[in-house]
Amino acid sequence: MTPLRVGLAGLGTVGGGVIAMLRGNAEIVAARAGREVVVTAVSARDRTRDRGFSVAGLTWHEDSAALVVDPSVDVVVEVMGGSEGPARALVEGALAAGKPVVTANKALLAIHGAALAALAERTGTSLAFEAAVAGGIPVIKALREGLAGNRISRVLGILNGTCNYILTVMREQGSDFAEVLADAQRLGYAEADPAFDVDGIDAAHKLAILAALAFGRPVAFDAVHVEGIRSITALDIAFAREIGYRIKLLGIARHGEDGIAARVHPCLVPEASPLARVDGVFNAVVAEGDFVGRVMLEGRGAGAGPTASAVVADLIDIARDRFTPVWGAGQALLSQVPSVPMERHAGAYYLRLMVEDRPGVIADVTAALRDAGVSLSSMLQRGRSAGGAVPVVLVTHDTTESAMRAALARIAALDSVTEPPAMIRIEHG
Amino acid sequence: MTPLRVGLAGLGTVGGGVIAMLRGNAEIVAARAGREVVVTAVSARDRTRDRGFSVAGLTWHEDSAALVVDPSVDVVVEVMGGSEGPARALVEGALAAGKPVVTANKALLAIHGAALAALAERTGTSLAFEAAVAGGIPVIKALREGLAGNRISRVLGILNGTCNYILTVMREQGSDFAEVLADAQRLGYAEADPAFDVDGIDAAHKLAILAALAFGRPVAFDAVHVEGIRSITALDIAFAREIGYRIKLLGIARHGEDGIAARVHPCLVPEASPLARVDGVFNAVVAEGDFVGRVMLEGRGAGAGPTASAVVADLIDIARDRFTPVWGAGQALLSQVPSVPMERHAGAYYLRLMVEDRPGVIADVTAALRDAGVSLSSMLQRGRSAGGAVPVVLVTHDTTESAMRAALARIAALDSVTEPPAMIRIEHG
Repeated sequence: MTPLRVGLAGLGTVGGGVIAMLRGNAEIVAARAGREVVVTAVSARDRTRDRGFSVAGLTWHEDSAALVVDPSVDVVVEVMGGSEGPARALVEGALAAGKPVVTANKALLAIHGAALAALAERTGTSLAFEAAVAGGIPVIKALREGLAGNRISRVLGILNGTCNYILTVMREQGSDFAEVLADAQRLGYAEADPAFDVDGIDAAHKLAILAALAFGRPVAFDAVHVEGIRSITALDIAFAREIGYRIKLLGIARHGEDGIAARVHPCLVPEASPLARVDGVFNAVVAEGDFVGRVMLEGRGAGAGPTASAVVADLIDIARDRFTPVWGAGQALLSQVPSVPMERHAGAYYLRLMVEDRPGVIADVTAALRDAGVSLSSMLQRGRSAGGAVPVVLVTHDTTESAMRAALARIAALDSVTEPPAMIRIEHG
Repeated sequence: MTPLRVGLAGLGTVGGGVIAMLRGNAEIVAARAGREVVVTAVSARDRTRDRGFSVAGLTWHEDSAALVVDPSVDVVVEVMGGSEGPARALVEGALAAGKPVVTANKALLAIHGAALAALAERTGTSLAFEAAVAGGIPVIKALREGLAGNRISRVLGILNGTCNYILTVMREQGSDFAEVLADAQRLGYAEADPAFDVDGIDAAHKLAILAALAFGRPVAFDAVHVEGIRSITALDIAFAREIGYRIKLLGIARHGEDGIAARVHPCLVPEASPLARVDGVFNAVVAEGDFVGRVMLEGRGAGAGPTASAVVADLIDIARDRFTPVWGAGQALLSQVPSVPMERHAGAYYLRLMVEDRPGVIADVTAALRDAGVSLSSMLQRGRSAGGAVPVVLVTHDTTESAMRAALARIAALDSVTEPPAMIRIEHG
């Protein structure tokens, strides 16, 4: 068999990982792929930079778009990142030209995935993206192929290693968000601009992709409700622990009778649940299918090695001509189930207030909840502070998001409530 | 596209599950497969039995071998079980005739997998067996495709739900093996003849398959060291808990410098390790790769639903013409790494003795260990029994299996040791 010739766009950490794996494990890859898989051409901005590996013998393109027309390239690997600009142009160009694409680009897939899938189908070209979600954990393959016969009711997980690392360290050290974020930035676990991670956007990109695969419908990033972890405090983590929970940023998509609800936000999960125990930079994805039951996959969600592992697995699929439509089924067969807005979410809530330490305050708060139709399951009050504010924790029975928001608006407006209330949804994992 | 026509051999629990899934989720399966997947012919012993589903319209074959020559059958699904007899004949016949096979038969794959892979390669035919290991958890696909570019150093897991259920209940209730086994048999969680499960054979079949896939070598069931759980007592589970461990039946295969070691036996695993927390009938598989790191997959390991999920996923692969060689690579490219015998195993050991409660006994025991070159990390003694026997627990530092066996032989021969010693290996999960 002739080798599969790879054109690699992006020579950062991930690109370097891909080259290291294809070179270091060349024999294993060739055996699994049934042919050699070799990088023949690359594209990156700075040709002079020392990247720790040799680029001798590789064709160098200043412009990544040149990989599409380079006759020595059979498949394009896009690891530049960004949902627009050169990455998008390269992937669109390759698919239009019928050249298979492997990408690690979750933003691109989440935002333009529907159009890209249509384009890929029109030209009958592979668009593979195992590396876009949960690093080296083969979750895309599991949902798109391994569990393909199931009616999936729910897919959820810990999808952002940076947030999980920050929340884990906050719990272990009792530190506050800003402090741990600064440490994580120094250690390289968080970006200089951490917004994509800590505001939940990265997790929402991944959840949009997982939901599309799990439910066989076009990707719908705009329909994902997104909240990040900036407002999580050491105080709430301590209270959560006291009532038997841990705080995790989860992405959750559920296919209910009225449609698909997808949301990313911090959650209280019971300490004994498997997701609660996934700590540090690890990711985990749970899928619930009507025949398979509950399946969980866990591993490292980022980094050069895990991402390269996923990219190379996709290359091996392409080398073997193993083809799967982008969202698991042909465009005409994708489900058109509507999205359910967050207001219709139902569940239990954790509420932590800072209130003045004087008679009547709890009565006002509980009256606001009652008037909104929210019933309480438990209440916790700690400490006294004559003339100052004390924390009060309330846990509700199942209620709706809209009722909770109505109650919160009234509570926040009370004179005796001295800070904006902290509200965290409770999930059973 | 024309439908993919399935001939189903075996209409027990699993066969019924396959029919239920293909009928109940027909639309989902057709979308994922790109064509309908329909059962056209079946084979089972008793035609008159009510199985809870209609066999109207299906061709009925008394002899499963007839499915091979039935022109209305494109692919054979073998869910009869057994490593010999009709199951083996059917799979061999179908592969020889170039008709793809999907099977849930771990014994057949473990014992005859090398010859079947050679036959499948000769005729260029698919032999799919996702259902053979860990039920609906897509571990075969993960190892054979999803992690395919990695050099895997270790694959391990909880591979038998019956054993895990029994050990879980023993721990939760403090009951002994025989009692919990009898309960499990009444509840249908254990077979009337439980030997295959509780003696570790079923787990060893599965481990042999996982090792072949992980290391890209022909399956070698005979090289797996096998011990079951019959000798595990409530006393040892209680002692394990006291020193921070749980007892699990693990299958572990490691690719070291001198070759591949594969073993199934009860292990002490640290309570905090992810495998220790996989309880009841759940299975879990961990793979460690040089690029991906540690990946764990967890879910239900048996039952009609999970097994059907795996069989149908294989059928969808075949409907889409997604082809992978049986052991991940062509026969000529499989590794010929030797197997390492159990005597060369190195690790720590838990040892529990019943000894006469009198001076000098511990000195004799520790002298036996010292003479074999085994050093102790801790010792635990509970209770007093003037004139009777008391339990003593010893935990060793890392040592070799051969040293441990030499020490055990001397200890067992001591007059003051009143029962055969209990020896359980310690694994870090």
